[in-house]
Amino acid sequence: MSPTTIKVYRDLMEKNAAWADMTRRLAAKKHVAILNLIGSPGCGKTTLLEGMVRELGPHFRFAVLEGDVETTRDAERLDALRIPVCQLITSGACHLSAQLVHTAFRDLPLDDLDVVIVENVGNLVCPAGFDIGEAAKVAVLSLTEGEDKPVKYPQLFHEAGAVVMTKIDLLPHIPADLDTCIAAVRQVNGAVPVFPVCALDGRGLPPWIAWIERLATQTRGKDR
Amino acid sequence: MSPTTIKVYRDLMEKNAAWADMTRRLAAKKHVAILNLIGSPGCGKTTLLEGMVRELGPHFRFAVLEGDVETTRDAERLDALRIPVCQLITSGACHLSAQLVHTAFRDLPLDDLDVVIVENVGNLVCPAGFDIGEAAKVAVLSLTEGEDKPVKYPQLFHEAGAVVMTKIDLLPHIPADLDTCIAAVRQVNGAVPVFPVCALDGRGLPPWIAWIERLATQTRGKDR
Repeated sequence: MSPTTIKVYRDLMEKNAAWADMTRRLAAKKHVAILNLIGSPGCGKTTLLEGMVRELGPHFRFAVLEGDVETTRDAERLDALRIPVCQLITSGACHLSAQLVHTAFRDLPLDDLDVVIVENVGNLVCPAGFDIGEAAKVAVLSLTEGEDKPVKYPQLFHEAGAVVMTKIDLLPHIPADLDTCIAAVRQVNGAVPVFPVCALDGRGLPPWIAWIERLATQTRGKDR
Repeated sequence: MSPTTIKVYRDLMEKNAAWADMTRRLAAKKHVAILNLIGSPGCGKTTLLEGMVRELGPHFRFAVLEGDVETTRDAERLDALRIPVCQLITSGACHLSAQLVHTAFRDLPLDDLDVVIVENVGNLVCPAGFDIGEAAKVAVLSLTEGEDKPVKYPQLFHEAGAVVMTKIDLLPHIPADLDTCIAAVRQVNGAVPVFPVCALDGRGLPPWIAWIERLATQTRGKDR
């Protein structure tokens, strides 16, 4: 990189961090936990949210910020389930910026929410490098992607506060093994909790939802 | 974007285009066709290459430039099949630059090759924006990613010279339909050839290989 490029990149990251800090402070004040869902296109992020709505009932109150390069399809899917949802279109950009997230976040009815889930752009690489003010990054990995992905794309798995492994219903039909995939996560991040799920039939969702509930309870318990 | 950011971005893209042009000129001189394979992590790019080696026999002579963020696993998989392969590590970057590809390409034994296949970093967004001097971009899409992906990530599918749809063996087990997925490609790119395949058992590979052979024949037929 040329010196100019380095400076612009540093400016960009500093500005991003400042917006992320603003979001984090507002979230703390309002006792709202923010989760940043990151995974490949088609790994099942939206289907996971749909499954959670079915399982959740009135456990806690959550809204979704839905990031996409183009189209409002995912937001429409969630809106149909009556989850409060706001669509963020990046118009080609490969990740959500902290500024875009902040602009949408501050307009949510924060006093009536426990958790805000941000579904990032489908991309296992770039979103991992951009803080958006989240309490935790959540890596979403479909088992159909193969066992080696945590090691091949380590940044996200290294930083993740939780890993959700989706599509366990396909295990009998694919050349991948759950234990091997979990071991690959452990190579990169020894302590992170891993939640194998099938969002379509609800298998594995309760422990994952319990993890979010614990996070929400901790956030609510903090001093104002 | 600030004016400085715009200038740096323009410089970056101009430099990338210059390296891509150098690669394209060298490829034309040596009558080598370059394919740029782009798709999500785990969509089956490396398995597709493994399947092609099994089906191909001595049809044509090809080498692989293997792009990864980290690790040399994919290159090792291909090396085990005795395909000439060179590993390109981006160290965190989300796409292959034309300069990195050029540096590896010019060191290949080009006089003994018909086709060079570049397996880009697993990412459906960023690599689509960077020319690497290819004759054609090839979009690789696993049917497990869902039918809507061509519309949600349109840039790649709009620019692709061919689309390979992988993992058709899983169609009985997933909520996706082949015709609907092909129709989604058609929405973005009406004319592009689509090749549904199962790289594990070889189904669908012959028409895809025939497409590459036609491209290689055209490239060989051009005036020196």
